[in-house]
Formats: sequence, C-alpha cells, structure tokens
Amino acid sequence: MRASEIRALFAVANRPEVVSLAGGMPYLEGLPLDVIAAAMQKLVATRGTTVLQYGSGQGDESLREKIVDVVRLEGIDCHPDDVVVTTGSQQALDLVTRIFIDPGDVIVAEAPSYVGALGVFRSYQADIVHVPLDEHGLVPEALEETLTRLAAEGRRVKLLYTVPNFHNPAGVTLSAERRPRILEIAQRFGVLVIEDNPYGLLGFDGDPLPAMRSLDDQGVLYLGSFSKTFAPGYRVGWVVAPHAVREKLVLASESAILCPSNASQLAIATYLETCDWQGQIKQFRELYRERRDAMIGALSEYLPSASWNVPDGGFYTWVKLPDGLDARSMLPRAVTARVAYVPGTAFYADGTGADHVRLSYCFPTPERIREGVRRFAGVVSAERDLVDLFGTSGAQDPDLTDVENPGPNLA
Amino acid sequence: MRASEIRALFAVANRPEVVSLAGGMPYLEGLPLDVIAAAMQKLVATRGTTVLQYGSGQGDESLREKIVDVVRLEGIDCHPDDVVVTTGSQQALDLVTRIFIDPGDVIVAEAPSYVGALGVFRSYQADIVHVPLDEHGLVPEALEETLTRLAAEGRRVKLLYTVPNFHNPAGVTLSAERRPRILEIAQRFGVLVIEDNPYGLLGFDGDPLPAMRSLDDQGVLYLGSFSKTFAPGYRVGWVVAPHAVREKLVLASESAILCPSNASQLAIATYLETCDWQGQIKQFRELYRERRDAMIGALSEYLPSASWNVPDGGFYTWVKLPDGLDARSMLPRAVTARVAYVPGTAFYADGTGADHVRLSYCFPTPERIREGVRRFAGVVSAERDLVDLFGTSGAQDPDLTDVENPGPNLA
Repeated sequence: MRASEIRALFAVANRPEVVSLAGGMPYLEGLPLDVIAAAMQKLVATRGTTVLQYGSGQGDESLREKIVDVVRLEGIDCHPDDVVVTTGSQQALDLVTRIFIDPGDVIVAEAPSYVGALGVFRSYQADIVHVPLDEHGLVPEALEETLTRLAAEGRRVKLLYTVPNFHNPAGVTLSAERRPRILEIAQRFGVLVIEDNPYGLLGFDGDPLPAMRSLDDQGVLYLGSFSKTFAPGYRVGWVVAPHAVREKLVLASESAILCPSNASQLAIATYLETCDWQGQIKQFRELYRERRDAMIGALSEYLPSASWNVPDGGFYTWVKLPDGLDARSMLPRAVTARVAYVPGTAFYADGTGADHVRLSYCFPTPERIREGVRRFAGVVSAERDLVDLFGTSGAQDPDLTDVENPGPNLA
Repeated sequence: MRASEIRALFAVANRPEVVSLAGGMPYLEGLPLDVIAAAMQKLVATRGTTVLQYGSGQGDESLREKIVDVVRLEGIDCHPDDVVVTTGSQQALDLVTRIFIDPGDVIVAEAPSYVGALGVFRSYQADIVHVPLDEHGLVPEALEETLTRLAAEGRRVKLLYTVPNFHNPAGVTLSAERRPRILEIAQRFGVLVIEDNPYGLLGFDGDPLPAMRSLDDQGVLYLGSFSKTFAPGYRVGWVVAPHAVREKLVLASESAILCPSNASQLAIATYLETCDWQGQIKQFRELYRERRDAMIGALSEYLPSASWNVPDGGFYTWVKLPDGLDARSMLPRAVTARVAYVPGTAFYADGTGADHVRLSYCFPTPERIREGVRRFAGVVSAERDLVDLFGTSGAQDPDLTDVENPGPNLA
C-alpha cells in the first residue's frame, strides 16, 4: 500500500457512513457563527481596502499584539516584534526546516512524533532520530544519551522537535519538572528546540503549564496556532523566535508566499477582539473532555485486550494493539467495517509503530465515538482470531509503506 | 546597501508623503466593498463550519470549477482536476521550484524578470540564465541560441520562466506569432515552461491573447492569480498542471501548508458567484489605462532624456535612464525627494540593470503619478548634472547588492 493508496483509503474514510477516528479536525459547531459572520461583514465594509490588500511579510501588527496576549497565558513574555505570522503552523515547520536543515542533518524527535512534521523533515532530507517518551513526556536521560551518541558519531544535530502538551499522537504532556532539564540538555549540545504547541490551551484540568519558551527565550522556537483553539480555515499560526531567526523566517516566508493573508489575519484579530475567545476555549475544553471520556469508556468496554493512555487534554488517544496485530494491514478491513484510524507507523520515521493506532476523539459526537470504537473492536477481534488460528492475519502486508503524507485530514 | 537597507528604504517609501512608483499593489477603492462585505456575512453564517474548517490540499472544488471559467477567457480548456490552488502565485513558484530544481540546475528567464521569482529560484540554488526580450517579448532566436549553448556545455536546463503578458517589469507582451515558436523550442530541448500570468486579463486594448497553456497542455505549467484582477489580501493563486506534476504539487503544498485557506477560497468563489467580476475587471482596465496614460504623459513632459516602453496592459513601465546614471545609488536621493521606484538591478540575476528603473502606475492616482514623475525627473536631472561635472554622481556605490528580496510591496 503506497502513500497514494493510503490517501485513497482516507478519502473513503471521509464518507458519512464511516466513523473517522483518524482526523485532527476541531469541532466547530459550537462557535458563535452569527457573531463571527456579522464581524466579518463589518470588517470588510469598514476596512476593506486593508483586508483585501497585500500585507507585511512578518504579519499584521494588530494580530501580533494579540498573539502576545495569547501566549502570555502560558507564561511567555514577548514583544509583537518577536512574532512571525505563518500560514498555519505547518508553514512554520516548513520555514524552520528550510532555514536550518541541510541534507543529512539530524533532527531529534519524540517516538512517536507528529506525522506532518516528519513529512516536512523528510522533504528536506533531514535524518530523523527518535527519542522515547513516557507518561511524563520526552525522557531527559534518553535525550542526553542520544545526543551524546550522535556527538560521538560526529553527526550534526540541529533541532529537537517536541510537542510538549497533549502530544500528537501519544496524548502525554511533558512534566513541569522535566522542562528545564530538557532545555539544559539541548543548550549543552547546541540544539535548538522547536516547541510545537497547538493544544496547550486545551487541557482538561487546571491551568496550562509554562511553555518551554517561557523558560528560555534564545534556545526555543515556539510554534502556535489558532487551528485547534479557534478555527483552521483561516490557516493562521505563528512563531515566537529570537531576533536573528525571526529575520530569516520573514525572508523565507516572503520567498514562499510573499505575505500571510490580511483577510485571514484581520478576521482572527477581529474574532479575538469581539468574541469571548477565552470563554470559547473553556467550552471547547468541556466538549473535548466529554469526548475523551466517551473514547476511554468505549475502549474499556469494547477493547479491554488493548492498552492506552488517558490524555489530560488535546485530541488523541494512543492505543497499543493486542500482540501480533499490524495496524497497517488491518486498516482496509477497518474502513470496510466503517471505522477509520491512523496506523502508528505514520508517526515514526523508522518503520516501527505497527503495534499502535492513533484514535482521535475531537470531531465525532460521543455517540459516534462509542460506535466507532465498537466497530474498531470488532475488527481487532476478528483479526485476533485469524492470528490465533494461523499465526498471521493473512492480510497482504510486506509492501506497506509509511503514511508519508496523509493529507490535511490528519493534521 | 544590503538587502536589509533596501528594505528599510522601502519602509520609508511607504510613508504617505512619498509617492511610491515602486509597488505592485492593485488599486482596490473601486471594489464593491459593501456587496463583498454582505456576501462574507452570509457565507460565514450559512457555511461557517466549512469556511472555518481544514480543506483539501488541492483546493476547494467549487473554486477550482470557477477557475476553469476564468482561464477559459484566455483559451485554456482544462478540468477542475487539473487545477491546484495555492497561497498566491508566489507559493506556486515556490512549489514548482522545490519540485523540479536541484542545486545548480539552470532556469532560463527573461532579461529582465520578476524579482519575486528570481528570489525563489536563488533560494533553491538554481542557476539563472537570462534570455533577452524585445518589444514583442522573449526573443525565440535568443532562446534557441541560449539553450543550444547550455546543452553544449552539458548544463541541465529544467525550466523556462516567462511572464508573457504585460511583463513585470518590462511591460511588453509576447506576440501571438512567437508563442508557438517558444513552445516548440522548449519542447525540443525538454524544458518545462512556467507561464506566469497575473496580468493577462488586464490588457487595455482588445481581447486577451491565447495563453501558452492553450497551445500545449503537457509542456506548460500555467500560474494564475486573483491578486491583480480582484484582491491580493486573500492570497489565492493557482496552477494548471499536467496530471503527474499536479500530484507532486499537491503533496508539496500539503507539506508546506497542509491546505490552502477555506475561508479565502470560499470568499473568492462567493465573489465570483455574486459579483460581476468581468465587469469589475473591465473597470480596472479603464482605471489602469488612465494611469498608464498619466505615467507616459508625465514621462514625456518631465523626463524626455530617458526612454521607455508604452505598455498595453498591466502595472509597469520600464524606463531606461539617461547615460551614466545608476538606479541603485540614486535611490536614497529619490526617497529623500519623496518618490520611490525599483532599481532595474532587482530584475536581473547577474548584477546588470542599473541603467533601468521600474515605475509602476497601478496604485497612485493620476495626479500623484504626475507629481511622482516630476520629483523623479528632478532627481535624475540633479544626478545628471553631477555626472556631467564630475564624471560620477559621487554617490556611494560599489557596495550595493541586488534587491534580493524586497518584500511583498514589490509583488
């Protein structure tokens, strides 16, 4: 199964009769669409010639000022000049990789890691080296060991890529205690940290942890996004970067797209100004917590032979399959049974991960989540029976390649 | 003067007291902003959960259907499947270069050529080789000679980059007679043609010429944009590409930005559906023709010692300075005299072009254009006196570098 076949499979998975536990699409029904619609009308009517015109490469200043307020919620103290607006954080990943990576350079990333980042890193011919995480996030000892080994091998490690909060796909959060330790190790080895944080404000319990960037304003590039806390349709993300990197980012972004969309940026700035965006995030947290509960409840009920973590926020559960099952070869059968997921292999650069699946609970309703898990459990059970009987599920397998680029639905 | 200084200079040039003949910003006052505002309100109120959600990597299908109608005006017969929506045509340039160019590969481009394209080509370490154009556009004999020479040298020429209509910066249009000849030569040498056509519908006289893509659906990648015919603030452009290239473009775009903005795409689709967009383009043509006339009239009156072409459409006049003047070293004095332009060197990869300037007439009113040209002529005249007296203008010069990346204002 090649990348294009996987894409075809996911295209099928988007049909309404299929419960997709694959995508990372936020649930938007709860947004005050009438209020937003009225604000958009007023924005174009009163500031149309700015909204519709070219803007600056770094991004609109009024939006950058508001982004400063947003990141302050995670303890970041920065200036609007430190912010570069991007076309979603995917563009930030692309620009950072473009600036820093020469073919063969090493990027260290968690095992598992976000599929969209791995795709970008590969496209610039980076060599991705995984470091394990556990229930408290990236393991400092393992990071130190890996960087020591790579240094001994004379490898050039440029970046550490990490999703510290409500990890995609693993669902775990880097503990407050580990954050300064990770930063100290990175600094000691001269490695720049990419802190990719789309989910940080979507925790189910308590206040957000201080961002790594709040502890280190030179060694960290902080990537933020409005895609999960408001809406992905405007494609607005941002980077908080030290001065020298920020200038490079602006030049690279101008080369890539001239400037981010004024229409999108001013729409977001207007939303932040006219709507209770923090109250909205609180509502989203309640909504996603309820769905997380539905997911975990259904897993306990229907799939006790698997194991999983219970995420404290974000969109994803990371499920270890019963022994002997292969998440990739099982996928076509799952889609036939009208449920979709992402095989764990998508989140590793080294071909491992076939014993895991990522199940997302962000988009379907709790009832659909339960139904999806029920169907998924049926597929696992049938697969399990085949393995018990024949030692293998008999599915066509060895030709499976990674889900190298599964498309925007898996964001 | 380094790139950053040039950027600082252009930042000053954006002040209201400066007449900027530098930028490529379209004039948006004429748009029916109230109608667009109402349409945006309705769009978000009725289709909000689609507008605000992730979309497909290739772009929204309803917009791609409308793009098929737009390009039909230039004789292109294609299917919505052939269209890839991009974040402005700048992103199309970036993706095409990313896909096709390895460091050291040759891209052939007109002399002069669009500054934003040269910047992208350089960023991927392409080797840019210029081919002259004349008043009928790119010269076929010169192209053939150049490709023959490069082939003899064993150089790998991948792309021919051309702006056939109302060239940026040269203002000329590739004649209908030359189009098939250029295509035949490119095909014979196995070179893919990038037809960059943001201005094609902005001709002042008669119907648009048939696009090169209308004559060859395999050897041409056609780049289109709504930035000049509607509004750049949404950042929506597109590529019409043969099947195999289109698939690569979609994958590369997903890696770069996941997907183009649904909000922007559906805003454009709504505009095309609800407004008389062809009537609007007709209005723009009248507006820009009047400004072209103001520019040419003012040049004749104030600067008879220079020479220029009279463009039949688009945004730009390409002016040859009187002998002995250097457009780069003159720029700071011009900005002091409250007029800005782009030195010709920005449009060449080889350091030449200091004897030309690009003057744009798209954004300022006719009165401001006249005043800008008057100021410009004053600067030229003072500079001319210095050269006559001392053999040089005495301006600090030799450290000047190209305007490598002048930012979005020079689109």
